[in-house]
Amino acid sequence: MRSGADKFLGELPEIAEKFMKFRNAVMSEGKLTEREKMLIAVACAVAVRCDACTEKHAAEALKMGIGKDELKEAAAVAALIRAGSAMNTASRIFLD
Amino acid sequence: MRSGADKFLGELPEIAEKFMKFRNAVMSEGKLTEREKMLIAVACAVAVRCDACTEKHAAEALKMGIGKDELKEAAAVAALIRAGSAMNTASRIFLD
Amino acid sequence: MRSGADKFLGELPEIAEKFMKFRNAVMSEGKLTEREKMLIAVACAVAVRCDACTEKHAAEALKMGIGKDELKEAAAVAALIRAGSAMNTASRIFLD
Amino acid sequence: MRSGADKFLGELPEIAEKFMKFRNAVMSEGKLTEREKMLIAVACAVAVRCDACTEKHAAEALKMGIGKDELKEAAAVAALIRAGSAMNTASRIFLD
Amino acid sequence: MRSGADKFLGELPEIAEKFMKFRNAVMSEGKLTEREKMLIAVACAVAVRCDACTEKHAAEALKMGIGKDELKEAAAVAALIRAGSAMNTASRIFLD
Amino acid sequence: MRSGADKFLGELPEIAEKFMKFRNAVMSEGKLTEREKMLIAVACAVAVRCDACTEKHAAEALKMGIGKDELKEAAAVAALIRAGSAMNTASRIFLD
Repeated sequence: MRSGADKFLGELPEIAEKFMKFRNAVMSEGKLTEREKMLIAVACAVAVRCDACTEKHAAEALKMGIGKDELKEAAAVAALIRAGSAMNTASRIFLD
Repeated sequence: MRSGADKFLGELPEIAEKFMKFRNAVMSEGKLTEREKMLIAVACAVAVRCDACTEKHAAEALKMGIGKDELKEAAAVAALIRAGSAMNTASRIFLD
Repeated sequence: MRSGADKFLGELPEIAEKFMKFRNAVMSEGKLTEREKMLIAVACAVAVRCDACTEKHAAEALKMGIGKDELKEAAAVAALIRAGSAMNTASRIFLD
Repeated sequence: MRSGADKFLGELPEIAEKFMKFRNAVMSEGKLTEREKMLIAVACAVAVRCDACTEKHAAEALKMGIGKDELKEAAAVAALIRAGSAMNTASRIFLD
Repeated sequence: MRSGADKFLGELPEIAEKFMKFRNAVMSEGKLTEREKMLIAVACAVAVRCDACTEKHAAEALKMGIGKDELKEAAAVAALIRAGSAMNTASRIFLD
Repeated sequence: MRSGADKFLGELPEIAEKFMKFRNAVMSEGKLTEREKMLIAVACAVAVRCDACTEKHAAEALKMGIGKDELKEAAAVAALIRAGSAMNTASRIFLD
Protein backbone atom coordinates (compact mmCIF):
# COMPACT_ATOMS: atom_id res chain seq x y z
CA MET A 1 0.00 0.00 0.00
CA ARG A 2 1.56 3.28 -1.14
CA SER A 3 0.14 6.09 0.95
CA GLY A 4 -0.27 9.74 0.02
CA ALA A 5 2.69 10.49 2.29
CA ASP A 6 4.82 8.02 0.30
CA LYS A 7 3.80 9.73 -2.95
CA PHE A 8 4.57 13.17 -1.50
CA LEU A 9 7.98 12.07 -0.29
CA GLY A 10 8.65 10.51 -3.70
CA GLU A 11 8.36 14.01 -5.13
CA LEU A 12 10.94 15.49 -2.75
CA PRO A 13 13.84 13.01 -2.73
CA GLU A 14 16.31 15.08 -0.74
CA ILE A 15 13.82 15.96 1.98
CA ALA A 16 12.49 12.39 1.90
CA GLU A 17 15.90 10.96 2.62
CA LYS A 18 16.27 13.16 5.70
CA PHE A 19 12.71 12.49 6.82
CA MET A 20 13.18 8.72 6.57
CA LYS A 21 16.29 8.92 8.75
CA PHE A 22 14.33 10.91 11.30
CA ARG A 23 11.51 8.37 11.05
CA ASN A 24 13.86 5.46 11.52
CA ALA A 25 15.51 7.07 14.54
CA VAL A 26 12.09 7.61 16.10
CA MET A 27 10.61 4.17 15.31
CA SER A 28 13.57 1.86 15.94
CA GLU A 29 14.09 0.12 19.28
CA GLY A 30 15.35 2.31 22.09
CA LYS A 31 13.98 2.29 25.64
CA LEU A 32 10.71 1.28 23.99
CA THR A 33 10.45 -1.73 21.69
CA GLU A 34 9.49 -1.43 18.01
CA ARG A 35 6.19 -3.10 18.89
CA GLU A 36 5.40 -0.49 21.56
CA LYS A 37 6.31 2.32 19.18
CA MET A 38 4.06 0.91 16.46
CA LEU A 39 1.14 0.66 18.89
CA ILE A 40 1.77 4.29 19.84
CA ALA A 41 1.96 5.28 16.15
CA VAL A 42 -1.47 3.77 15.45
CA ALA A 43 -2.96 5.49 18.50
CA CYS A 44 -1.45 8.86 17.49
CA ALA A 45 -2.77 8.42 13.94
CA VAL A 46 -6.24 8.08 15.47
CA ALA A 47 -5.62 10.98 17.87
CA VAL A 48 -4.83 13.35 14.98
CA ARG A 49 -7.70 11.83 12.98
CA CYS A 50 -5.67 10.76 9.95
CA ASP A 51 -7.48 7.97 8.09
CA ALA A 52 -4.59 7.24 5.74
CA CYS A 53 -2.07 7.08 8.61
CA THR A 54 -4.31 4.78 10.63
CA GLU A 55 -4.74 2.38 7.70
CA LYS A 56 -1.05 2.35 6.94
CA HIS A 57 0.26 1.97 10.47
CA ALA A 58 -2.43 -0.59 11.36
CA ALA A 59 -1.32 -2.68 8.35
CA GLU A 60 2.31 -2.39 9.47
CA ALA A 61 1.35 -3.31 13.02
CA LEU A 62 -0.54 -6.42 11.89
CA LYS A 63 2.49 -7.48 9.84
CA MET A 64 4.63 -7.17 13.00
CA GLY A 65 2.28 -9.55 14.78
CA ILE A 66 0.32 -7.00 16.79
CA GLY A 67 -3.30 -8.12 17.04
CA LYS A 68 -6.38 -6.13 16.05
CA ASP A 69 -7.58 -6.43 19.64
CA GLU A 70 -4.49 -4.59 20.77
CA LEU A 71 -4.88 -1.91 18.12
CA LYS A 72 -8.44 -1.21 19.03
CA GLU A 73 -7.54 -0.78 22.70
CA ALA A 74 -4.81 1.64 21.67
CA ALA A 75 -7.31 3.57 19.54
CA ALA A 76 -9.74 3.78 22.46
CA VAL A 77 -7.05 5.55 24.48
CA ALA A 78 -6.74 8.09 21.65
CA ALA A 79 -10.49 8.76 21.74
CA LEU A 80 -10.40 9.17 25.52
CA ILE A 81 -7.55 11.67 25.39
CA ARG A 82 -9.39 13.72 22.76
CA ALA A 83 -12.36 14.05 25.11
CA GLY A 84 -10.19 14.76 28.15
CA SER A 85 -8.22 17.44 26.35
CA ALA A 86 -11.45 19.33 25.62
CA MET A 87 -12.37 19.17 29.30
CA ASN A 88 -9.19 21.04 30.14
CA THR A 89 -10.23 23.81 27.78
CA ALA A 90 -13.79 23.69 29.13
CA SER A 91 -12.54 24.59 32.60
CA ARG A 92 -11.93 28.11 31.26
CA ILE A 93 -15.67 28.65 31.54
CA PHE A 94 -15.23 28.83 35.28
CA LEU A 95 -12.56 31.53 35.41
CA ASP A 96 -13.77 34.69 37.07
CA MET B 1 -11.29 41.77 28.33
CA ARG B 2 -9.27 42.39 25.18
CA SER B 3 -8.34 39.05 23.67
CA GLY B 4 -5.36 38.18 21.50
CA ALA B 5 -7.73 38.08 18.53
CA ASP B 6 -8.85 41.64 19.30
CA LYS B 7 -5.21 42.77 19.40
CA PHE B 8 -4.46 41.00 16.14
CA LEU B 9 -7.44 42.55 14.41
CA GLY B 10 -6.41 45.96 15.79
CA GLU B 11 -3.22 45.59 13.75
CA LEU B 12 -5.08 44.91 10.49
CA PRO B 13 -7.87 47.51 10.34
CA GLU B 14 -9.06 46.81 6.80
CA ILE B 15 -9.22 43.05 7.27
CA ALA B 16 -10.70 43.58 10.73
CA GLU B 17 -13.58 45.60 9.34
CA LYS B 18 -14.46 42.82 6.90
CA PHE B 19 -14.03 40.12 9.51
CA MET B 20 -16.33 41.90 11.96
CA LYS B 21 -19.04 42.15 9.30
CA PHE B 22 -18.66 38.43 8.66
CA ARG B 23 -18.74 37.80 12.40
CA ASN B 24 -21.87 39.90 12.86
CA ALA B 25 -23.65 38.15 9.98
CA VAL B 26 -22.83 34.79 11.55
CA MET B 27 -23.71 35.66 15.15
CA SER B 28 -26.84 37.79 14.71
CA GLU B 29 -30.33 36.30 14.95
CA GLY B 30 -31.45 34.26 11.96
CA LYS B 31 -33.20 30.91 12.17
CA LEU B 32 -31.24 30.49 15.40
CA THR B 33 -31.40 33.05 18.20
CA GLU B 34 -28.36 35.00 19.38
CA ARG B 35 -28.48 32.97 22.59
CA GLU B 36 -28.33 29.67 20.68
CA LYS B 37 -25.47 30.95 18.56
CA MET B 38 -23.51 32.06 21.62
CA LEU B 39 -23.96 28.63 23.24
CA ILE B 40 -22.69 27.07 20.01
CA ALA B 41 -19.75 29.49 19.93
CA VAL B 42 -18.66 28.46 23.43
CA ALA B 43 -18.98 24.77 22.56
CA CYS B 44 -16.97 25.23 19.36
CA ALA B 45 -14.29 27.15 21.27
CA VAL B 46 -13.96 24.09 23.50
CA ALA B 47 -14.08 21.71 20.51
CA VAL B 48 -11.10 23.44 18.87
CA ARG B 49 -9.40 23.69 22.29
CA CYS B 50 -8.95 27.46 22.32
CA ASP B 51 -8.57 28.68 25.92
CA ALA B 52 -8.73 32.36 25.00
CA CYS B 53 -11.86 31.85 22.85
CA THR B 54 -13.57 29.87 25.58
CA GLU B 55 -12.88 32.56 28.19
CA LYS B 56 -14.03 35.33 25.91
CA HIS B 57 -17.20 33.71 24.60
CA ALA B 58 -18.12 32.35 28.05
CA ALA B 59 -17.87 35.90 29.42
CA GLU B 60 -20.06 37.19 26.56
CA ALA B 61 -22.54 34.38 27.15
CA LEU B 62 -22.81 35.14 30.86
CA LYS B 63 -23.43 38.81 30.03
CA MET B 64 -26.30 37.71 27.75
CA GLY B 65 -27.89 35.85 30.64
CA ILE B 66 -26.80 32.34 29.71
CA GLY B 67 -26.01 30.38 32.87
CA LYS B 68 -22.80 28.55 33.70
CA ASP B 69 -24.82 25.34 33.97
CA GLU B 70 -25.85 25.75 30.37
CA LEU B 71 -22.31 26.49 29.24
CA LYS B 72 -20.90 23.43 30.91
CA GLU B 73 -23.48 21.19 29.27
CA ALA B 74 -22.57 22.73 25.91
CA ALA B 75 -18.89 22.09 26.63
CA ALA B 76 -19.61 18.46 27.50
CA VAL B 77 -21.10 18.00 24.02
CA ALA B 78 -17.84 19.32 22.57
CA ALA B 79 -15.81 16.78 24.56
CA LEU B 80 -18.12 13.98 23.43
CA ILE B 81 -17.79 14.90 19.76
CA ARG B 82 -14.01 14.96 20.04
CA ALA B 83 -14.04 11.38 21.31
CA GLY B 84 -16.61 10.24 18.73
CA SER B 85 -14.68 11.79 15.86
CA ALA B 86 -11.62 9.72 16.79
CA MET B 87 -13.74 6.57 16.76
CA ASN B 88 -14.60 7.21 13.12
CA THR B 89 -10.90 7.33 12.32
CA ALA B 90 -10.28 4.27 14.50
CA SER B 91 -12.60 2.20 12.32
CA ARG B 92 -9.87 2.31 9.65
CA ILE B 93 -8.06 -0.33 11.68
CA PHE B 94 -10.65 -2.83 10.50
CA LEU B 95 -10.29 -2.27 6.75
CA ASP B 96 -8.96 -5.33 4.97
CA MET C 1 -26.56 4.78 8.61
CA ARG C 2 -23.88 2.88 10.55
CA SER C 3 -20.90 5.16 11.02
CA GLY C 4 -17.27 4.22 11.47
CA ALA C 5 -17.65 5.09 15.15
CA ASP C 6 -20.54 2.61 15.42
CA LYS C 7 -18.40 -0.11 13.83
CA PHE C 8 -15.49 0.67 16.13
CA LEU C 9 -17.70 0.54 19.21
CA GLY C 10 -19.18 -2.75 17.95
CA GLU C 11 -15.68 -4.21 18.25
CA LEU C 12 -15.26 -3.11 21.87
CA PRO C 13 -18.53 -4.06 23.60
CA GLU C 14 -17.47 -3.34 27.17
CA ILE C 15 -16.01 0.05 26.38
CA ALA C 16 -18.95 0.77 24.06
CA GLU C 17 -21.45 0.20 26.85
CA LYS C 18 -19.67 2.74 29.06
CA PHE C 19 -19.24 5.20 26.22
CA MET C 20 -22.94 5.05 25.34
CA LYS C 21 -23.88 5.80 28.95
CA PHE C 22 -21.51 8.78 28.88
CA ARG C 23 -22.99 9.84 25.55
CA ASN C 24 -26.54 9.56 26.84
CA ALA C 25 -25.73 11.57 29.96
CA VAL C 26 -24.21 14.31 27.79
CA MET C 27 -26.93 14.40 25.13
CA SER C 28 -30.11 13.99 27.20
CA GLU C 29 -32.12 16.98 28.39
CA GLY C 30 -30.63 18.92 31.29
CA LYS C 31 -30.42 22.71 31.48
CA LEU C 32 -30.24 22.54 27.69
CA THR C 33 -32.85 20.74 25.62
CA GLU C 34 -32.04 17.74 23.44
CA ARG C 35 -32.62 19.95 20.43
CA GLU C 36 -30.07 22.52 21.60
CA LYS C 37 -27.56 19.78 22.33
CA MET C 38 -28.00 18.26 18.89
CA LEU C 39 -27.44 21.65 17.24
CA ILE C 40 -24.27 22.00 19.30
CA ALA C 41 -23.18 18.48 18.33
CA VAL C 42 -23.47 19.29 14.62
CA ALA C 43 -21.53 22.54 15.07
CA CYS C 44 -18.79 20.78 17.05
CA ALA C 45 -18.56 18.06 14.37
CA VAL C 46 -17.87 20.85 11.87
CA ALA C 47 -15.46 22.60 14.26
CA VAL C 48 -13.31 19.46 14.57
CA ARG C 49 -13.70 18.86 10.82
CA CYS C 50 -15.18 15.37 11.05
CA ASP C 51 -17.13 14.58 7.87
CA ALA C 52 -18.61 11.34 9.20
CA CYS C 53 -19.72 13.00 12.46
CA THR C 54 -21.30 15.90 10.59
CA GLU C 55 -23.26 13.55 8.31
CA LYS C 56 -24.42 11.39 11.19
CA HIS C 57 -25.43 14.17 13.58
CA ALA C 58 -27.03 16.22 10.79
CA ALA C 59 -29.18 13.18 9.92
CA GLU C 60 -30.13 12.77 13.59
CA ALA C 61 -30.91 16.47 13.86
CA LEU C 62 -33.17 16.39 10.80
CA LYS C 63 -35.01 13.39 12.28
CA MET C 64 -35.61 15.45 15.47
CA GLY C 65 -37.21 18.17 13.38
CA ILE C 66 -34.30 20.59 13.28
CA GLY C 67 -34.20 22.32 9.90
CA LYS C 68 -31.29 22.47 7.47
CA ASP C 69 -31.40 26.24 7.76
CA GLU C 70 -30.72 25.95 11.47
CA LEU C 71 -27.90 23.47 10.93
CA LYS C 72 -26.14 25.66 8.43
CA GLU C 73 -26.26 28.64 10.78
CA ALA C 74 -24.78 26.45 13.51
CA ALA C 75 -22.03 25.33 11.11
CA ALA C 76 -21.24 28.94 10.22
CA VAL C 77 -20.54 29.62 13.91
CA ALA C 78 -18.08 26.72 13.87
CA ALA C 79 -16.24 28.21 10.88
CA LEU C 80 -16.11 31.61 12.57
CA ILE C 81 -14.63 30.19 15.78
CA ARG C 82 -11.96 28.34 13.81
CA ALA C 83 -10.84 31.65 12.26
CA GLY C 84 -11.05 33.53 15.54
CA SER C 85 -9.03 30.91 17.40
CA ALA C 86 -6.17 31.37 14.91
CA MET C 87 -6.26 35.12 15.52
CA ASN C 88 -5.54 34.51 19.20
CA THR C 89 -2.45 32.54 18.24
CA ALA C 90 -1.52 35.18 15.66
CA SER C 91 -1.28 37.83 18.37
CA ARG C 92 1.95 36.09 19.51
CA ILE C 93 3.64 37.75 16.55
CA PHE C 94 3.44 41.02 18.47
CA LEU C 95 5.16 39.89 21.68
CA ASP C 96 8.44 41.64 22.25
CA MET D 1 -2.30 17.98 40.74
CA ARG D 2 -5.91 18.85 39.94
CA SER D 3 -6.21 19.49 36.22
CA GLY D 4 -8.69 21.68 34.40
CA ALA D 5 -10.45 18.52 33.28
CA ASP D 6 -10.83 17.44 36.93
CA LYS D 7 -12.35 20.83 37.78
CA PHE D 8 -14.71 20.65 34.83
CA LEU D 9 -15.86 17.15 35.76
CA GLY D 10 -16.33 18.31 39.36
CA GLU D 11 -18.95 20.71 38.03
CA LEU D 12 -20.90 17.98 36.23
CA PRO D 13 -21.16 15.09 38.72
CA GLU D 14 -23.57 12.91 36.78
CA ILE D 15 -21.64 13.17 33.52
CA ALA D 16 -18.37 12.83 35.43
CA GLU D 17 -19.45 9.52 36.94
CA LYS D 18 -20.21 8.11 33.48
CA PHE D 19 -17.02 9.55 32.00
CA MET D 20 -14.87 8.01 34.74
CA LYS D 21 -16.41 4.59 34.09
CA PHE D 22 -15.63 5.02 30.38
CA ARG D 23 -12.11 6.15 31.29
CA ASN D 24 -11.55 3.19 33.58
CA ALA D 25 -12.78 0.73 30.95
CA VAL D 26 -10.37 2.25 28.44
CA MET D 27 -7.33 2.50 30.72
CA SER D 28 -7.53 -0.76 32.69
CA GLU D 29 -5.63 -3.86 31.62
CA GLY D 30 -7.06 -5.73 28.64
CA LYS D 31 -5.02 -7.07 25.75
CA LEU D 32 -2.68 -4.17 26.52
CA THR D 33 -1.22 -3.62 29.97
CA GLU D 34 -1.92 -0.51 32.04
CA ARG D 35 1.65 0.53 31.45
CA GLU D 36 1.27 0.32 27.67
CA LYS D 37 -1.97 2.26 27.83
CA MET D 38 -0.39 5.00 29.92
CA LEU D 39 2.48 5.35 27.44
CA ILE D 40 -0.09 5.63 24.67
CA ALA D 41 -2.04 8.22 26.67
CA VAL D 42 1.03 10.44 27.04
CA ALA D 43 1.82 10.14 23.33
CA CYS D 44 -1.77 10.97 22.37
CA ALA D 45 -1.73 13.98 24.71
CA VAL D 46 1.29 15.22 22.76
CA ALA D 47 -0.32 14.34 19.42
CA VAL D 48 -3.36 16.51 20.18
CA ARG D 49 -1.05 19.19 21.65
CA CYS D 50 -2.64 19.34 25.09
CA ASP D 51 -0.13 20.74 27.60
CA ALA D 52 -2.31 20.03 30.63
CA CYS D 53 -2.98 16.42 29.51
CA THR D 54 0.71 15.82 28.87
CA GLU D 55 1.68 17.10 32.31
CA LYS D 56 -1.00 15.08 34.03
CA HIS D 57 -0.48 11.79 32.23
CA ALA D 58 3.32 12.12 32.38
CA ALA D 59 3.03 12.52 36.17
CA GLU D 60 0.77 9.45 36.36
CA ALA D 61 3.17 7.50 34.15
CA LEU D 62 6.16 8.36 36.34
CA LYS D 63 4.20 7.25 39.41
CA MET D 64 3.58 3.88 37.69
CA GLY D 65 7.33 3.45 37.22
CA ILE D 66 7.53 4.44 33.55
CA GLY D 67 10.79 6.32 32.95
CA LYS D 68 11.18 9.76 31.40
CA ASP D 69 13.31 8.17 28.69
CA GLU D 70 10.38 6.02 27.70
CA LEU D 71 7.98 8.97 27.73
CA LYS D 72 10.17 11.05 25.49
CA GLU D 73 10.45 8.26 22.95
CA ALA D 74 6.66 7.95 22.98
CA ALA D 75 6.35 11.70 22.46
CA ALA D 76 8.75 11.56 19.52
CA VAL D 77 6.40 9.09 17.82
CA ALA D 78 3.59 11.60 18.28
CA ALA D 79 5.65 14.33 16.59
CA LEU D 80 6.51 12.01 13.72
CA ILE D 81 2.88 11.08 13.11
CA ARG D 82 1.88 14.76 13.05
CA ALA D 83 4.39 15.38 10.25
CA GLY D 84 3.43 12.24 8.36
CA SER D 85 -0.27 13.03 8.53
CA ALA D 86 0.38 16.38 6.81
CA MET D 87 2.26 14.58 4.04
CA ASN D 88 -0.87 12.58 3.26
CA THR D 89 -2.78 15.80 2.82
CA ALA D 90 0.10 17.31 0.83
CA SER D 91 -0.24 14.58 -1.79
CA ARG D 92 -3.46 16.30 -2.90
CA ILE D 93 -1.26 18.85 -4.62
CA PHE D 94 -0.48 16.21 -7.23
CA LEU D 95 -4.05 15.31 -8.19
CA ASP D 96 -4.86 16.22 -11.76
CA MET E 1 -14.06 22.66 -9.38
CA ARG E 2 -16.83 23.57 -6.94
CA SER E 3 -15.66 22.70 -3.45
CA GLY E 4 -17.74 21.76 -0.44
CA ALA E 5 -17.03 25.22 0.94
CA ASP E 6 -18.46 26.77 -2.23
CA LYS E 7 -21.62 24.66 -1.85
CA PHE E 8 -21.94 25.59 1.80
CA LEU E 9 -21.56 29.29 1.06
CA GLY E 10 -24.11 28.94 -1.75
CA GLU E 11 -26.63 27.96 0.92
CA LEU E 12 -25.96 31.06 3.05
CA PRO E 13 -25.90 33.98 0.61
CA GLU E 14 -25.78 36.79 3.16
CA ILE E 15 -22.98 35.24 5.18
CA ALA E 16 -21.24 34.22 1.96
CA GLU E 17 -21.14 37.79 0.72
CA LYS E 18 -19.45 38.94 3.94
CA PHE E 19 -17.08 35.99 3.96
CA MET E 20 -15.99 36.64 0.38
CA LYS E 21 -15.20 40.26 1.22
CA PHE E 22 -13.13 39.07 4.18
CA ARG E 23 -11.46 36.49 1.92
CA ASN E 24 -10.66 39.08 -0.71
CA ALA E 25 -9.21 41.49 1.84
CA VAL E 26 -6.98 38.71 3.16
CA MET E 27 -5.85 37.31 -0.20
CA SER E 28 -5.35 40.48 -2.26
CA GLU E 29 -1.97 42.16 -2.57
CA GLY E 30 -0.77 44.10 0.47
CA LYS E 31 2.71 43.92 1.93
CA LEU E 32 2.73 40.39 0.54
CA THR E 33 1.99 39.63 -3.09
CA GLU E 34 -0.96 37.51 -4.21
CA ARG E 35 1.50 34.82 -5.20
CA GLU E 36 3.03 34.73 -1.71
CA LYS E 37 -0.41 34.62 -0.13
CA MET E 38 -1.48 31.74 -2.35
CA LEU E 39 1.64 29.76 -1.43
CA ILE E 40 0.84 30.40 2.22
CA ALA E 41 -2.78 29.33 1.66
CA VAL E 42 -1.70 25.98 0.22
CA ALA E 43 0.72 25.41 3.10
CA CYS E 44 -1.94 26.27 5.68
CA ALA E 45 -4.41 23.93 3.96
CA VAL E 46 -1.84 21.16 4.46
CA ALA E 47 -1.11 22.30 8.03
CA VAL E 48 -4.78 21.95 9.02
CA ARG E 49 -4.99 18.71 7.02
CA CYS E 50 -7.84 19.76 4.72
CA ASP E 51 -7.76 17.65 1.54
CA ALA E 52 -10.43 19.68 -0.24
CA CYS E 53 -8.71 22.99 0.60
CA THR E 54 -5.36 21.68 -0.58
CA GLU E 55 -6.81 20.51 -3.90
CA LYS E 56 -8.64 23.77 -4.44
CA HIS E 57 -5.86 26.15 -3.51
CA ALA E 58 -3.24 24.07 -5.33
CA ALA E 59 -5.36 24.33 -8.49
CA GLU E 60 -5.68 28.10 -8.01
CA ALA E 61 -1.94 28.39 -7.41
CA LEU E 62 -1.11 26.47 -10.58
CA LYS E 63 -3.44 28.75 -12.53
CA MET E 64 -1.51 31.75 -11.14
CA GLY E 65 1.70 30.28 -12.49
CA ILE E 66 3.07 28.90 -9.24
CA GLY E 67 4.89 25.63 -9.95
CA LYS E 68 4.24 22.25 -8.33
CA ASP E 69 7.84 22.30 -7.12
CA GLU E 70 7.12 25.44 -5.17
CA LEU E 71 3.91 24.02 -3.74
CA LYS E 72 5.56 20.89 -2.51
CA GLU E 73 8.27 22.87 -0.74
CA ALA E 74 5.57 24.96 0.91
CA ALA E 75 3.78 21.77 1.99
CA ALA E 76 6.99 20.39 3.47
CA VAL E 77 7.18 23.44 5.73
CA ALA E 78 3.65 22.65 6.93
CA ALA E 79 4.66 19.08 7.81
CA LEU E 80 7.72 20.33 9.66
CA ILE E 81 5.73 22.79 11.75
CA ARG E 82 3.25 20.08 12.69
CA ALA E 83 6.10 17.98 14.09
CA GLY E 84 7.75 20.94 15.80
CA SER E 85 4.51 22.04 17.44
CA ALA E 86 4.18 18.61 19.08
CA MET E 87 7.71 18.92 20.44
CA ASN E 88 6.69 22.06 22.30
CA THR E 89 3.89 20.12 23.97
CA ALA E 90 6.24 17.20 24.59
CA SER E 91 8.49 19.40 26.70
CA ARG E 92 5.76 19.30 29.38
CA ILE E 93 6.97 15.80 30.21
CA PHE E 94 10.01 17.41 31.82
CA LEU E 95 8.22 19.76 34.20
CA ASP E 96 8.82 18.88 37.83
CA MET F 1 14.83 32.18 23.28
CA ARG F 2 14.97 28.43 23.95
CA SER F 3 11.61 26.93 23.09
CA GLY F 4 9.95 23.83 24.53
CA ALA F 5 10.80 22.06 21.28
CA ASP F 6 14.48 22.93 21.76
CA LYS F 7 14.38 21.52 25.29
CA PHE F 8 12.65 18.36 24.10
CA LEU F 9 15.19 17.84 21.33
CA GLY F 10 17.99 18.45 23.84
CA GLU F 11 16.75 15.35 25.68
CA LEU F 12 16.89 13.14 22.58
CA PRO F 13 20.26 13.91 20.94
CA GLU F 14 20.18 11.16 18.32
CA ILE F 15 16.67 11.93 17.16
CA ALA F 16 17.41 15.67 17.40
CA GLU F 17 20.34 15.36 15.02
CA LYS F 18 18.14 13.65 12.41
CA PHE F 19 15.30 16.09 12.96
CA MET F 20 17.57 19.10 12.50
CA LYS F 21 18.84 17.70 9.19
CA PHE F 22 15.23 17.23 8.08
CA ARG F 23 14.45 20.76 9.27
CA ASN F 24 17.39 22.24 7.41
CA ALA F 25 16.48 20.43 4.20
CA VAL F 26 12.94 21.79 4.46
CA MET F 27 13.84 25.37 5.40
CA SER F 28 16.87 26.05 3.20
CA GLU F 29 16.58 27.73 -0.17
CA GLY F 30 15.19 25.58 -2.97
CA LYS F 31 12.55 26.68 -5.46
CA LEU F 32 11.35 28.93 -2.64
CA THR F 33 13.63 31.36 -0.86
CA GLU F 34 14.44 31.12 2.83
CA ARG F 35 12.37 34.26 3.35
CA GLU F 36 9.31 32.70 1.69
CA LYS F 37 9.73 29.54 3.72
CA MET F 38 9.95 31.50 6.98
CA LEU F 39 6.77 33.41 6.14
CA ILE F 40 5.09 30.07 5.46
CA ALA F 41 6.43 28.67 8.73
CA VAL F 42 4.91 31.52 10.73
CA ALA F 43 1.57 31.12 8.94
CA CYS F 44 1.56 27.36 9.56
CA ALA F 45 2.39 27.91 13.24
CA VAL F 46 -0.74 30.06 13.43
CA ALA F 47 -2.76 27.55 11.40
CA VAL F 48 -1.99 24.75 13.87
CA ARG F 49 -2.50 27.20 16.75
CA CYS F 50 0.91 26.78 18.36
CA ASP F 51 1.73 29.84 20.48
CA ALA F 52 5.31 28.80 21.15
CA CYS F 53 5.97 28.07 17.45
CA THR F 54 4.47 31.40 16.43
CA GLU F 55 6.63 33.33 18.90
CA LYS F 56 9.77 31.48 17.88
CA HIS F 57 9.32 31.64 14.13
CA ALA F 58 8.12 35.26 14.25
CA ALA F 59 11.33 36.17 16.12
CA GLU F 60 13.40 34.31 13.53
CA ALA F 61 11.52 36.02 10.72
CA LEU F 62 12.09 39.48 12.19
CA LYS F 63 15.81 38.68 12.49
CA MET F 64 15.82 37.80 8.77
CA GLY F 65 14.38 41.21 7.97
CA ILE F 66 10.78 40.18 7.41
CA GLY F 67 8.49 42.91 8.69
CA LYS F 68 5.67 42.55 11.22
CA ASP F 69 3.28 43.82 8.56
CA GLU F 70 4.21 40.89 6.38
CA LEU F 71 3.84 38.42 9.24
CA LYS F 72 0.40 39.64 10.13
CA GLU F 73 -0.80 39.29 6.55
CA ALA F 74 0.57 35.74 6.51
CA ALA F 75 -1.25 35.01 9.77
CA ALA F 76 -4.50 36.35 8.34
CA VAL F 77 -4.25 33.77 5.55
CA ALA F 78 -3.95 31.07 8.21
CA ALA F 79 -7.12 32.29 9.93
CA LEU F 80 -8.97 32.35 6.61
CA ILE F 81 -7.98 28.79 5.75
CA ARG F 82 -9.12 27.56 9.15
CA ALA F 83 -12.59 29.01 8.46
CA GLY F 84 -12.70 27.73 4.89
CA SER F 85 -11.67 24.23 5.91
CA ALA F 86 -14.66 24.04 8.26
CA MET F 87 -16.95 25.07 5.42
CA ASN F 88 -15.86 22.02 3.46
CA THR F 89 -16.89 19.83 6.37
CA ALA F 90 -20.11 21.81 6.79
CA SER F 91 -21.20 20.86 3.28
CA ARG F 92 -21.81 17.34 4.62
CA ILE F 93 -25.00 18.69 6.16
CA PHE F 94 -26.45 18.77 2.65
CA LEU F 95 -25.83 15.15 1.68
CA ASP F 96 -29.01 13.20 1.21
